[in-house]
Amino acid sequence: MRKRIGNRTLYFPSRPSVNGFYSVVGEKESQGPLKDWFDLSIGEGHFGEDSWEKAESKLIESASLGAIEQAGLKNEQIQCFFGGDLMNQCISTNYALRTLQIPFLGLYGACSTMAESLLMGSVCVDGGFCDHALCATSSHFCSAERQFRFPLEYGGQRPPTAQWTVTGSGACVLSLQGDGPYITYATPGKVVDAGITDLNNMGAAMAPAACDTLLAFFEDTGTSPSNYDMILTGDLGNVGKKLLHGLLRDNGIEAIDNLEDCGCLIFDDEAQDTHAGGSGCGCSASVLNSYIFKKMRNKELKKILFLATGALMSPTSSLQGETIPAIAHLLQIEAERSQPQ
Amino acid sequence: MRKRIGNRTLYFPSRPSVNGFYSVVGEKESQGPLKDWFDLSIGEGHFGEDSWEKAESKLIESASLGAIEQAGLKNEQIQCFFGGDLMNQCISTNYALRTLQIPFLGLYGACSTMAESLLMGSVCVDGGFCDHALCATSSHFCSAERQFRFPLEYGGQRPPTAQWTVTGSGACVLSLQGDGPYITYATPGKVVDAGITDLNNMGAAMAPAACDTLLAFFEDTGTSPSNYDMILTGDLGNVGKKLLHGLLRDNGIEAIDNLEDCGCLIFDDEAQDTHAGGSGCGCSASVLNSYIFKKMRNKELKKILFLATGALMSPTSSLQGETIPAIAHLLQIEAERSQPQ
Repeated sequence: MRKRIGNRTLYFPSRPSVNGFYSVVGEKESQGPLKDWFDLSIGEGHFGEDSWEKAESKLIESASLGAIEQAGLKNEQIQCFFGGDLMNQCISTNYALRTLQIPFLGLYGACSTMAESLLMGSVCVDGGFCDHALCATSSHFCSAERQFRFPLEYGGQRPPTAQWTVTGSGACVLSLQGDGPYITYATPGKVVDAGITDLNNMGAAMAPAACDTLLAFFEDTGTSPSNYDMILTGDLGNVGKKLLHGLLRDNGIEAIDNLEDCGCLIFDDEAQDTHAGGSGCGCSASVLNSYIFKKMRNKELKKILFLATGALMSPTSSLQGETIPAIAHLLQIEAERSQPQ
Repeated sequence: MRKRIGNRTLYFPSRPSVNGFYSVVGEKESQGPLKDWFDLSIGEGHFGEDSWEKAESKLIESASLGAIEQAGLKNEQIQCFFGGDLMNQCISTNYALRTLQIPFLGLYGACSTMAESLLMGSVCVDGGFCDHALCATSSHFCSAERQFRFPLEYGGQRPPTAQWTVTGSGACVLSLQGDGPYITYATPGKVVDAGITDLNNMGAAMAPAACDTLLAFFEDTGTSPSNYDMILTGDLGNVGKKLLHGLLRDNGIEAIDNLEDCGCLIFDDEAQDTHAGGSGCGCSASVLNSYIFKKMRNKELKKILFLATGALMSPTSSLQGETIPAIAHLLQIEAERSQPQ
């Protein structure tokens, strides 16, 4: 069976199925527009731990355990865990795996990690290497702010283009057999660097990467935006989403009315003062593994593209004058089991 | 074809082949016992760049280009790049991919990354998702010291258990067809935390993870150390290697005389004052993609196990009092194309 389409797209004839999914979010997220869709809110950000980093680790551990339970499985039945986070050396995920005890392949894709984990999980399941894979990622507003920007106590002003890192985690179990939603295609991203240096404008840095991957996928598969109920980006936010519309238009793709962004969906920017919207690995992970997969389960959404974008700089590279490279990984997800072609 | 053996081991019936490999190292490495085996020495550590981080990025870019050329391919024929490094947010690899322009799946496995990239590359090639995958990683003594320990200018004393981060990178192209060496099995690691807190004793933190993965592989495949010409760990160093001998003995595996470690091979500890040996992603990457693969090409080594170990802490987790979790991923590599079972 052909598993490669066009230049860059991978095809999954065995239809890896999302058999369990779970989302855990912080207080602010649990008060936003999607509050009724999340599985668990941790309230105040410490989640019973004595540091934000440990709290974040507990977020991804809890989301993973929730997804495994939803899939009706036990930890020892999960044969590979694909995941990572934004922390230096991905400590949130690494420490969670200490108790989860699942064979672990650590990923770093910044905020694209949820899509990267689904891509790798699908490759592993469809390739016949495992029956059940876990895909997960997390972020935490407080641990991310102090690592990437300023100590919270400093109270730095946030410009209008700044986004608010989501405190949250989402996880799902991909299995060889199941009732869906099903992963049918994936397009891995290339690094795209548009020359942006403003660490408070991630949307601008990431939109060109989203455009690049989307165009590659449409070309490889001969599809167009109208073939989908929704084209869902991870955390472009209001600024990046507008830029993506413009970039697609420049490439001959006019007026897409089904473009949504997890960062725009998760917060009420005006009421919650989140400026350009949500961001972070946990943003797309928590929205996909709640609102989106639930709407796919009840067939309100039948066929979507999910593409999570990541900004691949570090504070060190920025201090050394580097621009921000970005990447976007894409998945086609279908509510009903289509026949392999 | 069955692609899963026992509890944890993946099997690759199509025999992904290492069609090109390349190593680039720093000055100290180019003066060590393996000096005649490396492809390129960069001399003084800046490699023409104005920061160590940028030099490290150029290391992995150069090794990748070398491997692609050795395989007789062009960048655009490589369909997936699997790699990462030790830097916060893996910037060495991320920035290298800006110019390489290959679809990129970023990994974080600390010093286990070379093995993790070979595992993921083999899954992708054997699964039918790509014809050519690139696997690479890097480390740099100067960028690692200042990120994980102290500024070099501080001149901190190094205890006898400390290892010396290798300045180097290694890369290889895995292809569906070729003349080998061939990847035939892989066992992904689980996180093992032996309770070590000393950041200057990575060998002790990682040896239990190596033992865990080795035992799982032997059990899954019904093999034993005597089935291999060499069992090669990544960077346990002298201390960790001794501990691994002891741990294996405790588990009924006596007196292995074919256990080698890239960290012990790359430096002359006495003459080069490297204490417990080499470490870092670039250690196993540069040794495997030179000395080892060359000895496999000329059939001096016919069948080996390569397992790279990683210590998954960060300076932040250590400051918060956490112990050091570790992981080890294993590959069986064969010089000659064995028949699929």
